[in-house]
Amino acid sequence: MTELILPLQRLVEQFRSLPGIGSKTALRLALAVLDMSEERVEEFAGALLDVKRNVRECARCHNIAEGELCAVCGDEGRDAGLICVVEDVRSLMSFERTREYKGLYHVLGGTISPLDGRGPEKLHIDDLVARVESGGVREVIIATGSDVEGETTAMYIARKIKPYGVKVSRLAYGIPVGSDLEYADAQTLTRALEGRREVEA
Amino acid sequence: MTELILPLQRLVEQFRSLPGIGSKTALRLALAVLDMSEERVEEFAGALLDVKRNVRECARCHNIAEGELCAVCGDEGRDAGLICVVEDVRSLMSFERTREYKGLYHVLGGTISPLDGRGPEKLHIDDLVARVESGGVREVIIATGSDVEGETTAMYIARKIKPYGVKVSRLAYGIPVGSDLEYADAQTLTRALEGRREVEA
Repeated sequence: MTELILPLQRLVEQFRSLPGIGSKTALRLALAVLDMSEERVEEFAGALLDVKRNVRECARCHNIAEGELCAVCGDEGRDAGLICVVEDVRSLMSFERTREYKGLYHVLGGTISPLDGRGPEKLHIDDLVARVESGGVREVIIATGSDVEGETTAMYIARKIKPYGVKVSRLAYGIPVGSDLEYADAQTLTRALEGRREVEA
Repeated sequence: MTELILPLQRLVEQFRSLPGIGSKTALRLALAVLDMSEERVEEFAGALLDVKRNVRECARCHNIAEGELCAVCGDEGRDAGLICVVEDVRSLMSFERTREYKGLYHVLGGTISPLDGRGPEKLHIDDLVARVESGGVREVIIATGSDVEGETTAMYIARKIKPYGVKVSRLAYGIPVGSDLEYADAQTLTRALEGRREVEA
């Protein structure tokens, strides 16, 4: 019985299909489910189905939403003149956690990556352009990653929306706050030097 | 919207209740579920319910089983005179992976740990004693861990079953195969010295 019994094997495969979960972890999780009460497992299964059935995409920015618009787009107190373009919902959540950003978002759903067959038409770029075109937008912050795909995507978007006369910006790169210089890689340090600011005293 | 919308929050909590899954991983997994097709999510939910409903405990050794007995206990080719006592099903699977062990098992369901309020009565010890008592058992290998709880449990079980005249053994401790001496801790090295074997040449 080196093979798992079928119901367990099926559950292990389900867990293993999740990102970052290997075979050992998948087995550990599946065995943990076996140890749960039937009521707990029903709750878990219910939560899975519920999330898929009751969570949708914001019609404007593609953030997750319960209704037509997400909580950010539905909040009249946010600055509609500022759009922060992110790769995915997790990046959006990171910005929200700062509690400092008061503008709106636009979730691309990834980056341009010709090698993986992901051209710009697979991302929510057209409707970002439409949002800018419809007016009222002052600045677009492109917060895609600093890897090749992220930079390529940022460049592509910048070229598409600059003609509409909006300011287009990228995040600042530099030393993480609280981090020791010793641990900064050469590229980060170079960017930190390039972006140095004069001390006002 | 620093708070997650409710259906997502519920799913994050479900994932977070699994062993070894923190808040960040739970969020990552929940968002991955959002990205799955509805069909895939239904499969996942089905696998969860299925494992709980169709997997049970072997009536003899408490391994996981589809029927009355597990695949090991139901295999007539195994040596019924040898029982390997393990803490949990994962340990049993590790032994099965060696493809060398041909005896049966007994899954305790944990270790004795007075501090956590786990006395011997919470483990499947009584029916291990009953198996030994009913005869036909030659040797019991107690493969609980080498931590205090594991050693205490091994000692407790040894005292319970020795009166029936069976051989009781523990696994050998020593240097892991392929590992450098440099990385062996003092305790392991001491055990390896104690357990040294004469070279036959």
